[in-house]
Amino acid sequence: MLVRTAKGTKDIRSLWMEKGVVKAIDQRLLPNQFKIVSIRTVKEMADAISDMTIRGAPSIGAAGAYGMALAWQRKQDLTKASVTLVKTRPTAHDLSYAVNLMLERCDEDLVREADAYADRIVNMCKRIGENGAKLIKNGSRILTHCNAGALATVDFGTALAPIRVAHRDGKDVFVYVDETRPRLQGAKLTAWELLNEGIDHAIISDNAAGHYMKDSVDLVIVGADRIAKNGDFANKIGTYTKAVLAKENWVPFYVAAPISTFDPSTGTGKGIVIEERSEDEVLCVGDFRVAPKGSRALNPCFDVTPAKYVTGFVTEKGILKPNDISSFAKSP
Amino acid sequence: MLVRTAKGTKDIRSLWMEKGVVKAIDQRLLPNQFKIVSIRTVKEMADAISDMTIRGAPSIGAAGAYGMALAWQRKQDLTKASVTLVKTRPTAHDLSYAVNLMLERCDEDLVREADAYADRIVNMCKRIGENGAKLIKNGSRILTHCNAGALATVDFGTALAPIRVAHRDGKDVFVYVDETRPRLQGAKLTAWELLNEGIDHAIISDNAAGHYMKDSVDLVIVGADRIAKNGDFANKIGTYTKAVLAKENWVPFYVAAPISTFDPSTGTGKGIVIEERSEDEVLCVGDFRVAPKGSRALNPCFDVTPAKYVTGFVTEKGILKPNDISSFAKSP
Repeated sequence: MLVRTAKGTKDIRSLWMEKGVVKAIDQRLLPNQFKIVSIRTVKEMADAISDMTIRGAPSIGAAGAYGMALAWQRKQDLTKASVTLVKTRPTAHDLSYAVNLMLERCDEDLVREADAYADRIVNMCKRIGENGAKLIKNGSRILTHCNAGALATVDFGTALAPIRVAHRDGKDVFVYVDETRPRLQGAKLTAWELLNEGIDHAIISDNAAGHYMKDSVDLVIVGADRIAKNGDFANKIGTYTKAVLAKENWVPFYVAAPISTFDPSTGTGKGIVIEERSEDEVLCVGDFRVAPKGSRALNPCFDVTPAKYVTGFVTEKGILKPNDISSFAKSP
Repeated sequence: MLVRTAKGTKDIRSLWMEKGVVKAIDQRLLPNQFKIVSIRTVKEMADAISDMTIRGAPSIGAAGAYGMALAWQRKQDLTKASVTLVKTRPTAHDLSYAVNLMLERCDEDLVREADAYADRIVNMCKRIGENGAKLIKNGSRILTHCNAGALATVDFGTALAPIRVAHRDGKDVFVYVDETRPRLQGAKLTAWELLNEGIDHAIISDNAAGHYMKDSVDLVIVGADRIAKNGDFANKIGTYTKAVLAKENWVPFYVAAPISTFDPSTGTGKGIVIEERSEDEVLCVGDFRVAPKGSRALNPCFDVTPAKYVTGFVTEKGILKPNDISSFAKSP
């Protein structure tokens, strides 16, 4: 992804391995501060996933693979490392997929294997971008939720990949960026990526999505954290709402995700565990408490959108219908 | 409304007039600070409405009436005062209604007239509460948006009035409080009122409303800023989204508002002007900028929900269907 700093423009990934150390953009500090952190142990990697230094399903997958590479490098117990890593984000299918893949390949050089895993993600994202860009016309106004960009996917993005490709192809696009409470990944991260890339956009409160869906939005593209066998999928809280609004207003609703996000071992959305995060994410904004002392909050991190709302899944293999998924998906 | 402070519990209104001065709870400081401000001039009243010291359609109506009383007291040009007051919030029908009513009565004691106007609001809200409480069963889980409580309506509330009455009648109720970005009136004000009243509740991000609408919410009650002749209505941005989610999930969706909110001079929702507020409300939270420098925001303050989504309008005259409205509404 392009990153414009005072020192100029760089093209980097959201995480990579360099001389035995994992380097990652600290996504918690964006957009106010751009900082690369160093991760040296499984514990540090588990913390970086838990505290959302690294976030986004495919980036978390790569983080899991690199976490296993760190354990392998130190000749630690790989099964123990895999358990530590997987339990940090139970909803993220990519994480268990990547960690288990490294466990299967434990006789190989896991640093090389993890690099290859990250490369595969980036290549998949590029193909998702190329396939999805066909849906975007010159002048298209696109709504996206949360951050399914390069930060979330090592590079390039899933939901943002088609937008990136369309823009690089010279199409005039405009993006409505849901701010995405409670953690504001849209306002903080997606806007930052679009700004770096020079793509026209405006941030909106999540509440305003319905208003613009009525007559301004041509297309919705979101990412996914886990897609069940029947096409129901889990993604950032609020995704279901956008899907319902899109259906009500006849706006096409696409889910951009690599095939590895499909989980044929989960039959339907009912089988997806919804992670609850700290209520302070809702009660406070940053360190400032906005709610009265004594009030509590409920903070589900994801919601499940039934397959019937999905116009298509934009994957590296093309644009699939929910019914097409089973034939492509492999068990982890 | 009950207000619990360190000095004990008081029962007060959100604004009232006392010895020629208007007193109002500064709603911008809640829930962290409880402060009563004094308003002595039309200019101060216009500022208090613009900067949201006083907010909520019926409270703004009373503020308009009291603003006219302040002008009358000082023997100022009442037409000029009315123009100054009305232009502060163009979407608020109650404001122009109240200000015009005072203009018509300019031969009377306008302090007494404004007090009578505020009393009528409170009595209407009580009746809205009694009528709406019939919709609430023991154990009901209710979702509300923004603050349509006592703060917004001088006392008692519109959307919160049925909940208050049901609770005082001994019914066990639970309220899902949308935090209501960008200004967080749900997290800050509605939660504060419910806490003071001892009503069980949890704050949720606006994004989580869809998740809970699927199988937890029994009933949605919201307020309205302006209701067109055909039943389309304007309310806080995000209301339309909740209405669509309610319809999709077969959850009854009620709008609680006094008859004065009906505006027969506006035929449909298309005739309602949508106020745009500062983009800083979205780009910043409090004084802290969350979005990258260079990104812009769109910040419509209201949205319009078509009448077809409304199960019923809870008014002081009973629960009305969109078709029943015309016969009750009077032109301002």
